[in-house]
Amino acid sequence: MDDTKKAWKLINGGIAAPKGFYAVGVQAEIKYKDKFDVALIFSDVQAQAAGVYTRNIVKAHPLYLTQRHLKNGLARAIVVNSGNANACVGEFGDQTAQAMAEVAGTFLAIPPEDVLVASTGVIGVKMPIDRVLNGIRVASSLLLNHVVKGIRGQKEEADQAAHQAALAIMTTDTMVKEYAYELPCSQGGVIRLGAIAKGSGMIHPNMGTMLGFITTDAFLSSEELQQILREAVDESFNMVTVDGDTSTNDMVLLMANGASGITLNGADRANFVQMVNSMCIELAKDIARDGEGASKLMEVSVSEAKTKEDARKIARSICGSSLVKAALFGEDANWGRILTAAGYSGAGFDPNKVDVYLGDLMVAQGGKGIDFSEDKAKTILELKEVKISLNLHDGKEKATAWGCDLTHEYVTINGSYRT
Amino acid sequence: MDDTKKAWKLINGGIAAPKGFYAVGVQAEIKYKDKFDVALIFSDVQAQAAGVYTRNIVKAHPLYLTQRHLKNGLARAIVVNSGNANACVGEFGDQTAQAMAEVAGTFLAIPPEDVLVASTGVIGVKMPIDRVLNGIRVASSLLLNHVVKGIRGQKEEADQAAHQAALAIMTTDTMVKEYAYELPCSQGGVIRLGAIAKGSGMIHPNMGTMLGFITTDAFLSSEELQQILREAVDESFNMVTVDGDTSTNDMVLLMANGASGITLNGADRANFVQMVNSMCIELAKDIARDGEGASKLMEVSVSEAKTKEDARKIARSICGSSLVKAALFGEDANWGRILTAAGYSGAGFDPNKVDVYLGDLMVAQGGKGIDFSEDKAKTILELKEVKISLNLHDGKEKATAWGCDLTHEYVTINGSYRT
Repeated sequence: MDDTKKAWKLINGGIAAPKGFYAVGVQAEIKYKDKFDVALIFSDVQAQAAGVYTRNIVKAHPLYLTQRHLKNGLARAIVVNSGNANACVGEFGDQTAQAMAEVAGTFLAIPPEDVLVASTGVIGVKMPIDRVLNGIRVASSLLLNHVVKGIRGQKEEADQAAHQAALAIMTTDTMVKEYAYELPCSQGGVIRLGAIAKGSGMIHPNMGTMLGFITTDAFLSSEELQQILREAVDESFNMVTVDGDTSTNDMVLLMANGASGITLNGADRANFVQMVNSMCIELAKDIARDGEGASKLMEVSVSEAKTKEDARKIARSICGSSLVKAALFGEDANWGRILTAAGYSGAGFDPNKVDVYLGDLMVAQGGKGIDFSEDKAKTILELKEVKISLNLHDGKEKATAWGCDLTHEYVTINGSYRT
Repeated sequence: MDDTKKAWKLINGGIAAPKGFYAVGVQAEIKYKDKFDVALIFSDVQAQAAGVYTRNIVKAHPLYLTQRHLKNGLARAIVVNSGNANACVGEFGDQTAQAMAEVAGTFLAIPPEDVLVASTGVIGVKMPIDRVLNGIRVASSLLLNHVVKGIRGQKEEADQAAHQAALAIMTTDTMVKEYAYELPCSQGGVIRLGAIAKGSGMIHPNMGTMLGFITTDAFLSSEELQQILREAVDESFNMVTVDGDTSTNDMVLLMANGASGITLNGADRANFVQMVNSMCIELAKDIARDGEGASKLMEVSVSEAKTKEDARKIARSICGSSLVKAALFGEDANWGRILTAAGYSGAGFDPNKVDVYLGDLMVAQGGKGIDFSEDKAKTILELKEVKISLNLHDGKEKATAWGCDLTHEYVTINGSYRT
């Protein structure tokens, strides 16, 4: 989207930028020393909330708790840990998720049912329960101190604290993913939107694909939030693939506490929806860019497809192809692999109509190679962000997906993640 | 299968081991100097034939020709080149495939319709047509000389020549894949079966997955061959994944020329079918073992599944998981990734019933981790062939798939394949 057309603007801060939201990160020694690994996100008033989850049928224990706690569409807090997925450990896992919600509830003086829980890290290993619960206790009091200061009008430190929440949800991420946007409303006043996310490995369409937490001080019902979130996730997080593995733990949660005092209508509401979509896309791109071992962001756009689903399948299939990813790493204009990945995507199209572009350089027309400047291709492939486009000449639908290159570093990271 | 139960035995030779078959490989400089890159396989009598092909909707030009030429169920020769896929080059590609069949037909004095054509290599680049046709001419006369010697009872050199055909179909393969088996029949006499294959990259279920050529001197109709081949491929080549990419060029062809004089019945026929299956599985395992950059063979067996298709999906999903593959490379007993890959396979099962084994070491029971000896796990993961088993406790069906680890070498190979 053209920047000049955006009704909102980027502001400093992250998940705690919207009014009434606070967040902290602490070091609970779940990961390793000197790393933030427990995050707490809190609204000082009741918030409407919505969530989307992994489609993997093997689901981590906290997902069941969070789905249950979100049934009434209400939430006050999200507690997140990194370093342990709390997945595939049997009843102990359910008890751990429950204990995390209960301890957060007790220390924040809210019902445990208003606490949502998320985890990320190694699967199948029991959570160091004492450490995580202790981390939650420390995080709670730290957070309440920020609430007190916030009520007194001192919110500067709160942004710094919220940044540590962004750090605490990271696993193999190399960069923090946090954004804050502000939307001036026609009725006066502003709506803020904040988010943090983590990605890196086990990133693949079908959900979710990672952890994302989004806050806003707009007033919206949980039903509205659910619809807005589902649509935004479908165009963003669900269009990212790092390695084709759909995690057991992925979820994206959206909380709206209405603290702005503004109920969205008309153009403001439309702008808000666009702002959420835009932020989710930025986070999704960050996740792709920061894919495990990635050195490049790949953006694949498919246009003139017969159906939206065809466009989506093709874009994701190309982003997920190990051969395309390795060619990108090698800066090799191997467009045949692009067309091949489209061909096995499961989408319907006529291979003899497809044009393929690297950046603005056409490399294949009507499904066959054309003479193109290898030098120009090289210049395009050397960029940190490489755009690949396919025009199917077969309809009116389009879709964009994001991925990254496949590097030696990916292999190194994932050869030794657990040990 | 227990070796002692096999009715057949491994013999020397390859694709030309069955009576009446000849094969040669020549250096046509399509790949690079001093590499075999054109193979010719020939039956000196008319043969029944069958084929299975890639399911990628982007298909290489020779596939259309071969499918057309196989409509009558008859063939005399297969011409194959490596170094160029003859894919996505428009009409020129169809003309190239046609010219390859015509030149082979002319020089072997058989109708061009009896020639099948296969190609493998880079996609979207025009075939160096003069070189490939010249290679076919040279290969034809070389082959006819072996036929002459063969008729005179001198078939020793023919085996050596056939080995060069196996070399000529290789791309990034590091080892030749060729087998010959012999089945003594109850009526006296023997049936022989020979095969060559190539694999390495772009290897993924859904067809085919590579090039495979199989010959036998049994007498079988093309309809029988088609059924036997389809079933064998489904349990072997279609259960291999190297990188999740389904190629545009994959095909497996089976020719039966009846030169043994034996028509198969009863137990002999059943043994023959088993022998074909067994050979296809050996070739499939070789392809997985020799996957681009692979250092280990992974064999994943799923048992007690509700449906065969569920078992197949899970086995292939695990073999295809980048994270499982990287963990295998790192010799890391990260069984959580195994269960995760089962979870997103699309198969139906109850995650809380699944037992997971590395070799004979149980690492998870009822979907959750158990204490196991990391030392023992390490010993198992250090092997060149690692077996992973899942018992779903959900039914009676089973399936086995093969794959390999994901290594730095894979990235290196595929970062610079084309250039």
